[in-house]
Amino acid sequence: MSLVKEFNDYREKMNDVILEKENKTLKRFFSLDHQAYAEGALPVKTKELMGLVASMVLRCDDCIKYHLGTCYEIGVTTEELYEVFSIANLVGGSICIPHTRRAAEYWEELKSS
Amino acid sequence: MSLVKEFNDYREKMNDVILEKENKTLKRFFSLDHQAYAEGALPVKTKELMGLVASMVLRCDDCIKYHLGTCYEIGVTTEELYEVFSIANLVGGSICIPHTRRAAEYWEELKSS
Amino acid sequence: MSLVKEFNDYREKMNDVILEKENKTLKRFFSLDHQAYAEGALPVKTKELMGLVASMVLRCDDCIKYHLGTCYEIGVTTEELYEVFSIANLVGGSICIPHTRRAAEYWEELKSS
Amino acid sequence: MSLVKEFNDYREKMNDVILEKENKTLKRFFSLDHQAYAEGALPVKTKELMGLVASMVLRCDDCIKYHLGTCYEIGVTTEELYEVFSIANLVGGSICIPHTRRAAEYWEELKSS
Amino acid sequence: MSLVKEFNDYREKMNDVILEKENKTLKRFFSLDHQAYAEGALPVKTKELMGLVASMVLRCDDCIKYHLGTCYEIGVTTEELYEVFSIANLVGGSICIPHTRRAAEYWEELKSS
Amino acid sequence: MSLVKEFNDYREKMNDVILEKENKTLKRFFSLDHQAYAEGALPVKTKELMGLVASMVLRCDDCIKYHLGTCYEIGVTTEELYEVFSIANLVGGSICIPHTRRAAEYWEELKSS
Repeated sequence: MSLVKEFNDYREKMNDVILEKENKTLKRFFSLDHQAYAEGALPVKTKELMGLVASMVLRCDDCIKYHLGTCYEIGVTTEELYEVFSIANLVGGSICIPHTRRAAEYWEELKSS
Repeated sequence: MSLVKEFNDYREKMNDVILEKENKTLKRFFSLDHQAYAEGALPVKTKELMGLVASMVLRCDDCIKYHLGTCYEIGVTTEELYEVFSIANLVGGSICIPHTRRAAEYWEELKSS
Repeated sequence: MSLVKEFNDYREKMNDVILEKENKTLKRFFSLDHQAYAEGALPVKTKELMGLVASMVLRCDDCIKYHLGTCYEIGVTTEELYEVFSIANLVGGSICIPHTRRAAEYWEELKSS
Repeated sequence: MSLVKEFNDYREKMNDVILEKENKTLKRFFSLDHQAYAEGALPVKTKELMGLVASMVLRCDDCIKYHLGTCYEIGVTTEELYEVFSIANLVGGSICIPHTRRAAEYWEELKSS
Repeated sequence: MSLVKEFNDYREKMNDVILEKENKTLKRFFSLDHQAYAEGALPVKTKELMGLVASMVLRCDDCIKYHLGTCYEIGVTTEELYEVFSIANLVGGSICIPHTRRAAEYWEELKSS
Repeated sequence: MSLVKEFNDYREKMNDVILEKENKTLKRFFSLDHQAYAEGALPVKTKELMGLVASMVLRCDDCIKYHLGTCYEIGVTTEELYEVFSIANLVGGSICIPHTRRAAEYWEELKSS
């Protein structure tokens, strides 16, 4: 499961480098970013799918990988996932197709792990 | 309910102008865009919220208004809506705040109608 | 032809305000921007259509209006124009639809002038 | 000074509508957004200019107006401002020109107030 | 011709992974995306150049590579190509320069194949 | 210092490939891009920080690397740099976090060189 491990390791290592600089605004922003996806009036699953679709239309591969990882953990199915992909592609256009390819590859790795 | 009516009337009028030109690709694209939000493995509500969050991070006021209208019709609550706003602002940044203001204004109009 | 006149008047007035400030970089940039669309290895028409499609996927209504004005002057047909619209919508996604509506409205005004 | 007053009044009114909904994530995000521009290792002026250039390349007219207002209050000169405009246009491209026009108009209003 | 082959192989492999999931909206969107570039009122060459310029200002390296491949096949010259690059850079700004570097590299590979 | 050398070498090599094509608009644009950061009413340091923040919110890793290199040369401190990162993340949103990670990594390499 190399793509997944590589992503998570790099992410963790660099977050440490960033947070140890003790910039208060950045620290609070990172913490707020997690808080936004917590269970609330909307369930965690809906929020993760929203995080994923937002990452896809903004075309950020690393953000996509992060949300794919969480989606996998909470049991999103492949059929559901591809409906997210279809909305992202319709809203964001064919410019999202290359990101969809990399997302599909990462999802296969998550499933085969 | 002037903001809402103004938006819907203009949208309908200009869609007619566009579709009467009989460009096949555009017609199919418009129809596909609707199809993406139909009930499937994911419920309509989740899809509308994804459409809304995508519109917010891409900062398209008219797309936001369209999805707010549908969200209102299917019974999304104000508390749920503001959780969508919070995710959109975290992912998309403070650059989304002015769009959140206009979205909040449109939502108040929908509720008071 | 109010939309067209309003756009051109404002554009000209504010360009004057900007250029009288004598910022050399901005002046050269404005002049370079014109130069890019001059006849070269590619004909003016192809360049204007490229300027239009770029403005549409980047979703800048004023840039779209500017290129629509030039396209109208050099004889682009409505059928050709809607093929540009269809490519812009496919590449840029449904987020471009509201801009396509305003582009369609502006084009009708240009034709009826 | 109508453009300036209109912007500030709407901004204040809608911020109230948003904040009274008591969404904790949004409230903290709004507060964090202010905190980021406070005097620190970098002076307030540099931070405001960075806020302005970021708003220009992301092409958000309301964010531009907000930072223009603060820049005016802290004594940024017209010559300095146009150097910000020139960097924004070079980095962000001619797609920023219409936003530069509206920024120039707003700045003239601030100066004539 | 490793860059070119690597790109085409990955693209084909992942398109297969995506399409075998049988998501109807995605399948139709992929097919519509091809249809938009077919000969019509505008010639194929103009459409490919528009696809390229749109990909450059939206800064999608894979989309750029795809259109460069097609441009090469239909006989676009290097001089014409660099006029597309110049328009993309003017409209999209210096933020497009790194993508222009990778596009230039890919084009050299296509020519030397 | 491999990341830094790799970036600079590739940048220089491909700029040569581009400029030898003698496209006048591109050449002037490249030269104008440098001119925008020269000492003027605003000091070089402020301009470099603006170039960096613009590159971060537009999420261009190569542009970020370029400005990080210059910031390092002119003596920007780590504390100042992280204030730029914090503004970029607040304005541009969590979608900028992966780019902040790569920026942090590149900065560590610059410091350890």
